[in-house]
Amino acid sequence: MRIALDAMGGDHAPSEIVKGAIEASPHIQGEILLVGETSAIKSSFHGNFPPNVRLIHASQSIDMHEAPVEALRRKKDSSLVVAANLVRDGEADAMISAGNTGAATAAATMYWKCLPGISRPAIATIFPSKTGRFVFLDSGATVDADAQNMVEFAIMGAAYAQTVLGIANPRVGLLNIGEEETKGNALTKQSYRLFREHIDNFIGNVEGKDMWKGAADVVVCEAFVGNVVLKSSEGLGELIFSAIKDELSANTLSKIGAMLFLRAPFREIKKKTDYDEYGGAPLLGVNGLCVICHGRSNAKAIRNAILVVKREYQEHINDIIEKKAGIAHGGKGDVA
Amino acid sequence: MRIALDAMGGDHAPSEIVKGAIEASPHIQGEILLVGETSAIKSSFHGNFPPNVRLIHASQSIDMHEAPVEALRRKKDSSLVVAANLVRDGEADAMISAGNTGAATAAATMYWKCLPGISRPAIATIFPSKTGRFVFLDSGATVDADAQNMVEFAIMGAAYAQTVLGIANPRVGLLNIGEEETKGNALTKQSYRLFREHIDNFIGNVEGKDMWKGAADVVVCEAFVGNVVLKSSEGLGELIFSAIKDELSANTLSKIGAMLFLRAPFREIKKKTDYDEYGGAPLLGVNGLCVICHGRSNAKAIRNAILVVKREYQEHINDIIEKKAGIAHGGKGDVA
Repeated sequence: MRIALDAMGGDHAPSEIVKGAIEASPHIQGEILLVGETSAIKSSFHGNFPPNVRLIHASQSIDMHEAPVEALRRKKDSSLVVAANLVRDGEADAMISAGNTGAATAAATMYWKCLPGISRPAIATIFPSKTGRFVFLDSGATVDADAQNMVEFAIMGAAYAQTVLGIANPRVGLLNIGEEETKGNALTKQSYRLFREHIDNFIGNVEGKDMWKGAADVVVCEAFVGNVVLKSSEGLGELIFSAIKDELSANTLSKIGAMLFLRAPFREIKKKTDYDEYGGAPLLGVNGLCVICHGRSNAKAIRNAILVVKREYQEHINDIIEKKAGIAHGGKGDVA
Repeated sequence: MRIALDAMGGDHAPSEIVKGAIEASPHIQGEILLVGETSAIKSSFHGNFPPNVRLIHASQSIDMHEAPVEALRRKKDSSLVVAANLVRDGEADAMISAGNTGAATAAATMYWKCLPGISRPAIATIFPSKTGRFVFLDSGATVDADAQNMVEFAIMGAAYAQTVLGIANPRVGLLNIGEEETKGNALTKQSYRLFREHIDNFIGNVEGKDMWKGAADVVVCEAFVGNVVLKSSEGLGELIFSAIKDELSANTLSKIGAMLFLRAPFREIKKKTDYDEYGGAPLLGVNGLCVICHGRSNAKAIRNAILVVKREYQEHINDIIEKKAGIAHGGKGDVA
């Protein structure tokens, strides 16, 4: 397989991106295409590039805070646009970027289009739970989705849980403010009815509290809710860990105790909650493989993202999504 | 002032509710009316009731999982309905319940009606942040709110921050998925425009991540989003603390270290994140004072809820809400 990697996207680009590519390269049969300002890429790495890491020049790059669609239109030779076009033209199978999330989503959606049977894409986040991991989507791609979109998100999330997380028959839940079928807003009530009809192993409504206990393998919600939950969870986690740190530092005895006894346990917890471990967020539903990494991604996160698209590719995730979406649409294989 | 306390609501009713009332009674000039099955209330407490704690009999009680509106209709002599009617009839100024949240919200809204200028109520949650506390609303009262409701929520949240938290000129933020004015869904875009026009000290959009850093004193959102964030934050907090506990217990040395050095710091953190400390969630916008406590409330939570309604009463929170809502509605003092 060939993976187009946006070497210029992210807070630590290009050095950490390049490092991640090199670390992942022994695991990839095929090529990693490092897309960006070749002189910057070369000077960020001292040594020889592995034979399956190839540099593709792009003279521009899109900043984190640029308006996505406008940036794509203005910067035709940006690393992101060049990477997306490699996938569109069949020169690559997957794209990975730690840059502007909105721009990456827009590029994949506009240049690749959605898969047959899928009308809108979704960004999935992989969250840790008490019992393992779960796929949480849409965490930011399609604002103001309708119930039909939600059905497609459920299919996409289940395909990801199955192929990448290796869960044979994933339990799909609908994020809601109560467990009863009658709870929620207009969107969740309508989605509930469609899920019951079209989604394999639909376990009903799941509350925000229970998802952390491992109540479902796939949790489906609308993008506004999903993005707020994603960012608010990230912020709350940071608040709790910083509060612990502050309390421990306030007292010399606790500080010494923490240094002696708590380093290893905290390293384990950090590992479980660390987004670097999960290799970024897959953008699902588009006609190509795409993983969007956190802006703060380090080499490990990039390496893991590469391993995720490898798995998606090997397990034919998009064929599964297309087939399931076709069945949900009454075998027509396309949205009515 | 007179406070009607639902003695039968909550997991630890009536004993913890009664205990909370007795602990708060020296701080209340006026009466606490303990509403419920008087025999159960009496047998839950061994001793004499303080002179300003009076028992009001109600033969029924509403369970946690009963459908709210139906329960209110069927159980006219339930502790909740009797308590709500005391406020409606001017026999009490405030109602507190740790029972069925939906039923308490419905009772206050149906029997008391909304304040002039307010069309729908909101439940506010008081969250801890890096720098203090903030008011988060609506966390569950009004599903599918419109932008006009959101303006009223902002007014109500600011009045609470001012009167109960003692913040002179509270910074009001709109919960959104980006900081720019153009970000979000149809509701937040329209709300943004109205907030800019009508809300004092509106600081713009606030992301889920930044609210934990103390970005605003009041964070406004729609009830579905708010309730999901509330429950998901509660669940995530529990997950993190249980993960820490598991990791510490897995290793004898860490376990001993934790017992020796970490008890005090963890007690401090627990205190900061503990809902018992905040005295429940005020239901704002109704024509009376109402605080809804967590089902798991203990005596301390009930005591603190009583002190919260005392503060609301002394500071005339509803007069402030009514006045500000009147101004926002162009001085008409009622919704157009």
